Amino acid sequence: MAGWNSLEKAELQRLAEDAQKRYNEWKSKKLSLDMTRGKPCPEQLDLANRMLTCLKKDDYKSENGTDCRNYGGLDGIPEARALFAEYLGVGADDIIIGGNSSLNIMYNTVSAAMMRGVPGGKGPWSQEKVKFLCPSPGYDRHFSVCEYFGIEMVIVEMGPKGLDIDKVAELVGSDPAVKGIWCVPKYSNPTGHTYTDDMVDRLASMPAAAGDFRIFCDNAYSAHQLGRKPDQLKNIFEACKAAGNPDRIYLFGSTSKISFAGAGLSFMAASKANLDAYKASLAMQTIGPDKLNMLRHVRFFKDLAGIEKHMKKQAKIIKPKFDAVVEILKKNLDGKGIATWSNPKGGYFISFDVLDGCAQEVVKLAAEAGVKLTKAGATFPYGKDPNDRNIRIAPTLPSLEEIRQATELLSVCVEVVSARKLLG
Amino acid sequence: MAGWNSLEKAELQRLAEDAQKRYNEWKSKKLSLDMTRGKPCPEQLDLANRMLTCLKKDDYKSENGTDCRNYGGLDGIPEARALFAEYLGVGADDIIIGGNSSLNIMYNTVSAAMMRGVPGGKGPWSQEKVKFLCPSPGYDRHFSVCEYFGIEMVIVEMGPKGLDIDKVAELVGSDPAVKGIWCVPKYSNPTGHTYTDDMVDRLASMPAAAGDFRIFCDNAYSAHQLGRKPDQLKNIFEACKAAGNPDRIYLFGSTSKISFAGAGLSFMAASKANLDAYKASLAMQTIGPDKLNMLRHVRFFKDLAGIEKHMKKQAKIIKPKFDAVVEILKKNLDGKGIATWSNPKGGYFISFDVLDGCAQEVVKLAAEAGVKLTKAGATFPYGKDPNDRNIRIAPTLPSLEEIRQATELLSVCVEVVSARKLLG
Repeated sequence: MAGWNSLEKAELQRLAEDAQKRYNEWKSKKLSLDMTRGKPCPEQLDLANRMLTCLKKDDYKSENGTDCRNYGGLDGIPEARALFAEYLGVGADDIIIGGNSSLNIMYNTVSAAMMRGVPGGKGPWSQEKVKFLCPSPGYDRHFSVCEYFGIEMVIVEMGPKGLDIDKVAELVGSDPAVKGIWCVPKYSNPTGHTYTDDMVDRLASMPAAAGDFRIFCDNAYSAHQLGRKPDQLKNIFEACKAAGNPDRIYLFGSTSKISFAGAGLSFMAASKANLDAYKASLAMQTIGPDKLNMLRHVRFFKDLAGIEKHMKKQAKIIKPKFDAVVEILKKNLDGKGIATWSNPKGGYFISFDVLDGCAQEVVKLAAEAGVKLTKAGATFPYGKDPNDRNIRIAPTLPSLEEIRQATELLSVCVEVVSARKLLG
Repeated sequence: MAGWNSLEKAELQRLAEDAQKRYNEWKSKKLSLDMTRGKPCPEQLDLANRMLTCLKKDDYKSENGTDCRNYGGLDGIPEARALFAEYLGVGADDIIIGGNSSLNIMYNTVSAAMMRGVPGGKGPWSQEKVKFLCPSPGYDRHFSVCEYFGIEMVIVEMGPKGLDIDKVAELVGSDPAVKGIWCVPKYSNPTGHTYTDDMVDRLASMPAAAGDFRIFCDNAYSAHQLGRKPDQLKNIFEACKAAGNPDRIYLFGSTSKISFAGAGLSFMAASKANLDAYKASLAMQTIGPDKLNMLRHVRFFKDLAGIEKHMKKQAKIIKPKFDAVVEILKKNLDGKGIATWSNPKGGYFISFDVLDGCAQEVVKLAAEAGVKLTKAGATFPYGKDPNDRNIRIAPTLPSLEEIRQATELLSVCVEVVSARKLLG
């Protein structure tokens, strides 16, 4: 089929009417589906149910004798540090384990930098003009943290090949106000890209105009393969060290999408100087994280192989959902020149681009027909997609049948809106 | 026996030598005891061990159908809100449940006020001169939060009758920079005072020069009776409402010293306006608290009667330790005019006052003989006791025998240092 932008007006008109008719049919079905957020589905959570019961009544001591029921231990217990250090590819002394939210550690890291500055810096970032590079489309909650602290966000494009590393190098190298960059280096949210070795090396070694430049690196999907040959991410923590920039990186991770989304563990790897500074701020706000939940995770997963095995089971559940989205989009939209989409090897999202200026309208139409999608623009700083074209599809939570329905409807919405747009 | 300050020099000299001799004997025993912090002892924690196993493998849903394993729910699950609302004496809609640290909620509340201001205020507190009243001796971690945010702390005396409410009223009523006061209204840390009805009413109703004045009220020891006739605290949340100042109070609590110190629940009651503002900031830093741990608490305690029953069991364990401290201090120091101490009906501490200018030296001598006490000065803002006389005794963690030894040694240290002081 020819691309819609090369069609005669009459033909487009016919397609528009046809699409509108199908949209109305969908609307009459009164669907009520929610594809807004990257939440695991119950079947994924069920896989970890043994974590609810894996501690026995006298099992509360860490291997170093710490009573996990009591106060203390800002670092986390040693066996949890060892396990998740291996998971992140860092040393056990390079990591601290936190509560149930890695967003919380990220927020705290930025907050501490604003209040006190970072090692090697000149003082509180709040006293300076601060900009963060925000590869976009990206993760809305990273951007919210910047917005909350009044940090100016600079969009760097996540294009068809992923991160625009040349642009990053140019901005980091020339502007001393650029103090940070948000990165999701593997199966990026939402585009699914994994950074190439060259990107990793350049991030680690590029000259920075700010002496206290930091990579806020959220390796959220490190083990989240979808069952095909997994992407390989070069060890960015080691790369920073090797480049002589050990303080440059905060590396975050969590088990939110491994064990329980609401009751997982979060962690951060960083240089000793960075960890010490972070803990000095953390000590103001807590006496220590929940160490019993660390023990649960260690008892349940045992080792890295246990985590990997667990993630294979998850992939079995969610891969058919990703496949269904891609298959239906292909069936309905391929070759029409009105949409493109990612087909990721892992992570939690499919990134979906429509014609410029159409994303908000597509999301609106879908909502009116009962399918809630992530707000258009959410994947960009300040919630504003400059091209109004990106939509984030989160296929994990709904059932396979719901995913199918939602994607069929989404396709129709795209046709309706695209035809209108092309008709002018 | 006559007070030491009325003794002849020769007699004092003799007492000094005798005390020094006994101190040297203690020192030769090479004790190694830690009485620094208010941590529960293992036997207290054991009482809640069933919480480790009380969730079964299919028990993860809240009464409203929420899957507690998944993301979401900034407020906490309804049954936990209901239980701890009753515990705090507020309505279920007045409370939110957080993670394992009420200090974290307090810090976040102050942080949000600094960043964004509070309802009824003129904007971020960080843009104004801000002072907090700090009843002292008080809780060091409250003071650390102020210090971290650059909030000026003003000492208000916790004297023999507790809070100096006249001074509070004078300062709150006259100085618009006074935006807050820290309060531990029941079994205060460390003095053990419970605020009188009059203090509660005046706190709730006193005119405030700052339109956005707040009471940061840490009701940490609400259920922490020591087995005698418990103190009654007037409902300060209701009092604020009744006085037409519903936004004046943040009321904090936790189960850290009820269930597990490191894996309890924290909560805050506040007006709808305050809660909404708090949640807007909280949403920047987490997707939600650990709801499974809320479910554990509800399953384990069931209701308020369950909590009260549990606290009676705890009192049985720790009351003998408090009694031992008081008994030994009385035996060794009564009538000498060189020390006074509290005999609290609840809470976690005994407040111990020595002669002015002697506390640091007493703590130092005790440490040199193997007994670590909370740093002298820690109970005051900036860690500086203006009279250098207050020492906080934390009797819960050590065993009864250790408590006895430590208190005997402490008595001797006080005698040594007091005699030196009086000899000039």
